Formats: sequence, structure tokens, C-alpha cells
Amino acid sequence: MIKIGLLGLGTVGSGVFSILEKHAETIKRKVGTDLKIEKVLVKDKDKQRDLDFDDQILTDDIDEIINNKDIDLLVELIGGENPAYNYIIAALNSGKSVVTANKLVIAKYEQEIMGLAREKGVQINYEGSVAGGIPVIRPLKESFAANKIERLYGILNGTTNYILTKMTNEEREFDEVLAEAQSLGYAERDPHSDISGADAAYKISILSSIAFETSIDLNGVYVEGIEGIELEDIKLAEELGYVIKLLAIAKYHQDGLDVRVHPAFISKEHPLALVNDVYNAIYLHGDAVGDVMSYGQGAGRMPTASAVVADIMQAARDIYYQRPEVDNLDSIYNHDLVNISQVENSFYLRLQVKDKPGVLAQITKIFGENQVSLASVIQKHRLSEIVPIVLVTHQVKEENINKSLTAIKGLDDVISIKNLIRVEEL
Amino acid sequence: MIKIGLLGLGTVGSGVFSILEKHAETIKRKVGTDLKIEKVLVKDKDKQRDLDFDDQILTDDIDEIINNKDIDLLVELIGGENPAYNYIIAALNSGKSVVTANKLVIAKYEQEIMGLAREKGVQINYEGSVAGGIPVIRPLKESFAANKIERLYGILNGTTNYILTKMTNEEREFDEVLAEAQSLGYAERDPHSDISGADAAYKISILSSIAFETSIDLNGVYVEGIEGIELEDIKLAEELGYVIKLLAIAKYHQDGLDVRVHPAFISKEHPLALVNDVYNAIYLHGDAVGDVMSYGQGAGRMPTASAVVADIMQAARDIYYQRPEVDNLDSIYNHDLVNISQVENSFYLRLQVKDKPGVLAQITKIFGENQVSLASVIQKHRLSEIVPIVLVTHQVKEENINKSLTAIKGLDDVISIKNLIRVEEL
Repeated sequence: MIKIGLLGLGTVGSGVFSILEKHAETIKRKVGTDLKIEKVLVKDKDKQRDLDFDDQILTDDIDEIINNKDIDLLVELIGGENPAYNYIIAALNSGKSVVTANKLVIAKYEQEIMGLAREKGVQINYEGSVAGGIPVIRPLKESFAANKIERLYGILNGTTNYILTKMTNEEREFDEVLAEAQSLGYAERDPHSDISGADAAYKISILSSIAFETSIDLNGVYVEGIEGIELEDIKLAEELGYVIKLLAIAKYHQDGLDVRVHPAFISKEHPLALVNDVYNAIYLHGDAVGDVMSYGQGAGRMPTASAVVADIMQAARDIYYQRPEVDNLDSIYNHDLVNISQVENSFYLRLQVKDKPGVLAQITKIFGENQVSLASVIQKHRLSEIVPIVLVTHQVKEENINKSLTAIKGLDDVISIKNLIRVEEL
Repeated sequence: MIKIGLLGLGTVGSGVFSILEKHAETIKRKVGTDLKIEKVLVKDKDKQRDLDFDDQILTDDIDEIINNKDIDLLVELIGGENPAYNYIIAALNSGKSVVTANKLVIAKYEQEIMGLAREKGVQINYEGSVAGGIPVIRPLKESFAANKIERLYGILNGTTNYILTKMTNEEREFDEVLAEAQSLGYAERDPHSDISGADAAYKISILSSIAFETSIDLNGVYVEGIEGIELEDIKLAEELGYVIKLLAIAKYHQDGLDVRVHPAFISKEHPLALVNDVYNAIYLHGDAVGDVMSYGQGAGRMPTASAVVADIMQAARDIYYQRPEVDNLDSIYNHDLVNISQVENSFYLRLQVKDKPGVLAQITKIFGENQVSLASVIQKHRLSEIVPIVLVTHQVKEENINKSLTAIKGLDDVISIKNLIRVEEL
């Protein structure tokens, strides 16, 4: 029998509990032995819960789990940085294997945690930390092990994808859709981590470190959220043959890794364009396998619990059969991250300008001086003194766009730069 | 060092050879030791080859591999039933682990081969046998281990998907597109195994046996190919909001497993409808994970080699670290297969009838007598004595459709039944 210490009995924790209960027989058969939840760490032992268990397993004292020699496996599902990080380190130090779905802790402390697990000869599994139930970490480590991964694109945040989908399909503004998503429980009361792109940044950082066998400095990952996307941008994207998605990107270049999260125009024809609502997807290109995409529910109680229980089963099997931990996936490279200013992209730019002759000429002159060439220009006539101009550039280094924008902002006839969105050629 | 005996140096075999060469350093690091191709079984040792190797490794005598005690791992890539089956059995019997991409042998002899591998304590990996480079067998065994898989749909044959895609997008007839596919190398000179659905049947049989932990009697799998699909059907499908795909289906029912391969109408809006050309996809529903889809190149030299090398690496690691084989995925169930006559579906039916009053009434009367109700009827007026009638039924047992068709065929005014295609509500 393998005994488990479960930290947290919230959304995912209760899902894990119920899968271990419901499929106990099958799991026992596949693992080779029974799994037993020995202790569950909760904040409030007296809270009413819908799950059927002996109250004796609840504790509010982490030491009852860490110091319990019978517990082989710690399952951390409390989330957030602390105390989760401390508990994981303490468990590894006491020779327990760990399963977690904590993207923040893994993204921030991956090197330390992996190193400690290796040193102690125990497992650390974290499939649930990225893309919920979609298998992505294990395939990267195992199924694509014979590939050099060249690029990886993810729609890794369900909340922002839901908001962008609603804005697109129902032609509604950001604030309105966000409020609705919050009332439906698809967005948190404090949605900052999702909306700002931070959540997706943790996830692409984890995936990059596996795909490229390197440590990733989170501070070097460029992150931009979807707060600035207006319905007008979405409509213009559509008109130009694109949809807007919050894309997490990791590309291998000779001079470093290009890792970033930002809203992007992607072609309507690309499979990622069809990943809607709270669904997530990972699209990657390996030198042997070519293009592969996986798609599914990236969050939620049961999909994430599905990944966590698979991790538990793998760890439990290896503990039970005393299979030595043989993860040779040390981060042997130390790839630099490419600064966003050096990345080449096409750009979509939406400006408000005074409706006077010569304004477009002034703008295109500035672009010309900065080696920015234009792929398309949309100038719509409106019965107003202020009119929009929309430009799409060819591929150009981001620093050249930035220089151009500084100069364009200085023009008397330019009222404002409404948005600048990267166009990603997938 | 782990020594490999490679059987076959054709398309996939040469791909495996070149990946092992190109990524030797990375593979060594990930496995923990060097992999060495010790011997390669070929038909003709003197044939000119593009690969760079010592001619001494070539042999045309299988005994040099089976009886070579230094060889730990046999990689079977010759395909077909025999002698591949005999070689795999001989290798397992001599205590070697086996990696194969042979769908026919695995589908037909899965129970025997798995049992023998378990008895001998060696590995048998066959990810490359289904869907090329798309990870599907390993995720089913591991990532979705905590799920009860309820249904599984696959587009598992690239050749037929290419043909159907071309017919749809270019409005061309089957024979013409097939001929083109043959000239481009996307279809074999003898395309029967692909076109007839047999290839997809092997694959869905393998996936079903893993997903439902049962043995599958290939003879009980209903198989229908795409030979009968005409451009007219594809156009009508489009008009009704569908596309036609060769679908491999496996569903769990209380009274047995429903496993079949046939052309099907699927909604244009479904993600599988967008899997085009030679791409493959697997779409499954698990009780915890919900809907998950994987998509990629289902065949070809490098994608399949990518899966085979991943299998080799896993087997090699387990051999090197003497990790005991702990595959507890015995086929513990003995699910019956549901006979196709008992399966419920909607149906699309295209008839040629004489343009006389009352014909439709006679047909609908027969349907009514057999409890078949109609969802839609398309009757197009043409300046001809023979006109088409297209009907789409509601959900009904296949035996009721068959009885109706027998009666309809007997009507004087019905010239022919042009096609009957199942409509799959995914």
C-alpha cells in the first residue's frame, strides 16, 4: 500500500479525492497496490464538506504529514507560492516523492526542486501544472524525446481564451465579458494573474525548460496581457483574416530562446484559431515529428485531477516496485533568452489621426526611415475629424517598430496609438 | 551500452537509423547510456543505400540477431504479418525487448505478444503502430490512466483522409484523386488496405484494447471503406452542414463495445472536421478529462521514426537501469463487440427514383413501418426521368434501416440505392 499526504481539499483536491475513490479498483490494478489517502491538510477542519471520509484524516498541521514516515507521497494542491514551496521542499528533504499542480512554484523553483528530487532519489511530477488534463509534460519528456523541438505555441490560459472568444463571437467589449466570466466562475474575483498573462508565462516557462532542457529566468520572459484588446481590434483582425489569441510562444534560435506571452493575430486557417472558450491547446514542431497539436480542457476540477491522479499513479508504481528514479533530463543547457526588442514579427498598428491630407504620408515616411515596410493599410473614411488608420507591417525587429512609434507619437496630427499587436506567422 | 537489432531498412527503418545517428549525444544523455545498432536485417545486402554505416552490420540472416546474446532490443520495422510475427515471438522468447510499428501483428496477436512479454519480463512498445508521431498509446496507458474512457474517435488513415480532403476541396471524383495520390506516393500501388478501411481497423482495434482493457476480436470489428463515396455525396454532405471522414470509432456501452470503421458524416463545426490531408487525429472522451484531441502526421518516415525512437529510448532506459517491467495493463475484461445491426445512428441515404408522383410516399411509408423517422428530405427537380432523393433519418437501429432498404429496393419506381452513410453525432 502506498500512503498519500494530500495538501488542500479545494477544487482540484476534492477532484483527486473523488477519482481515487471512484476508480479505486482500477487504480489498484494498474499501480499494483492500493493507494490510501492517509492525511489531508486543510485550513479549517470543521468546514462542511461534500466528500465521504473519516474526519480523522483531516489535519491543520503540516508536520503530521511531513514527519509521518508512513507517507510515501505528498500531493500538493494548495497553490500559490508559500507555504506550498516550503512544504514541497520539506517533503523532498524527508525522502517523499511529490506530485503538484503548482505552476508558480515549479516555474520559479524548477531547478532547485528537480535537483533536490534527483539528489534524494524521489519523483517530482507536475503534469497538472500546465494545460489541465491535456498530456503535455510527459509527451515532451518521453514521446518527443527523439526530437529537437524547434517551436512551441500554446493557448494556456482558459480565462483569457474564454474572454477573447466571447468578444469575437458576440462582438462585445472586454469589460463586459470579463464581468460575465467572473459571475459564471470562469474568471477569478481578482483576475489579474490570468488577464495579465502571468499565468500563461509560468506555464510556457515550464514547457520551455523541458523542451529545450534549460533553466528559464522568469524575469526574462516578455509578458503582455489582454487588457488592452478592444472589440475594434477583434473586428479588424477578422477583416484581415485573423483571430486574436493570447499566445504563449517558445522558439529556439541560434542566439537564444525567444520566450514570450502576448496577444497575437493568428491566421483564421490555423488549427489554433479554432481553440475556443476555456479550451487550451499546445502546438509544437519537432524536427522529426513535424507539427503536432493537443487540445482539451486546460483547467477545472476533473480535467486537472485527471492529470494529478495519473502523476500519483506513476509515482506510486515506481515507489511500490522500487524502480529507481532515472530522470536524466537535467537542464544541461543555459540558453539565453532573446530580448523582445530583438525579435522579428509583423505588427498590426491602430492609430487615431486627424482627418487631414498628408498624415499617412508622414507616418509612412517615419516607417521608411526605420526600415519598416508595410504589408497593408486600412484607412476608413468617417464623418468625423478623427479617423482611424490601421497598418500591418512586414517582418521587422521590434526595436525598429518602437523607434517608429516614438516618432509617430510626436506628430501633431496623430491623436493616439490605440493598439500594437504582433502578427504571429505560425 | 544497449545493442539493437534492427529489422528492415525501408522508409521508417532508415528514419530510425538517421535519428539515432543525428541525435546520438542527446539520446545517450536521456537514456543514460549509448545505443548501438549492432545488426540490421535486410533482404538484399548489396543494395545501394543513402545511409552512412559499416557494411558489416547488414545481415540477411535473422538468426544472427535472435541468437546474438549481446543484442538487448529488437526493433521490427519490416511490416506485414509474416515473418514479422515470427521474428517478434522469437525475440521475446530469447529474452529481448521488442519495439515495433507493426499494426497488423499487434492488432492480430496482441494478447499473445503482451502475455509473452510479461512472462519473459521484457518490454514490448508499439507507439509507432498507430497514428505515426502522435502520442496516443502512451497517453492512453499513462496520462489517462485515472479515467474511464467512454468513447474514442480517430482519423487514423492518412491516405483516405487525403483522398476525401481532395474530393471535398477540389470537387473531384474518387478514382481521379486516388490515381493522383498514387502518383504522388500518398497512396500505395495496391491501395486496398487503406481504401477498404482495414488499416484503420487494425489501429482502432489496438487503441480499443488499451482504452477498454480488453481483447478485441478483429473479425468482430465492422469495416467499410471509402470506395463507394461519390463527389455527389460530398456535395450533399456540405449542403447539410457536414463533411465526410473515414472514422474509426470505439464506444463503451453497457452491453458491449461498439467498434467500427466506416465513412461518416460529421458536423463541419467539430474539430475532427478540420483534420485534413494526410493528417491524423484522435479525439477521446474520458469521465474525468472530458474531451481531448491530438493531431499530427499519422504516417511517413520521420514522424513514425520519432515514435519508434521514443519507444526504443524507453525500453533502453528500463533495460539499462534494470527497471522491472511493471505493465499491469493486462486485458482483464472480455467485452463483447456489439454487432453493427444493433448500433443506433442517424443515416444519410441517397436514392435514384423515377420522377413519378407518390414515390416518396411509398418510401416514407416503408420507413414508418420500420420505426425509421426522417430528419430531412431533399428532393431536387431535374429535367430527367430519373431523379435523386436524399433522406436523413433520426437515430435508429441499423437493422431497421436494413429492413427498410430491402423493402425499398423492391419498389418498382426505385432505380437504385446510391449510398447509405452513417451520420455520427460526436
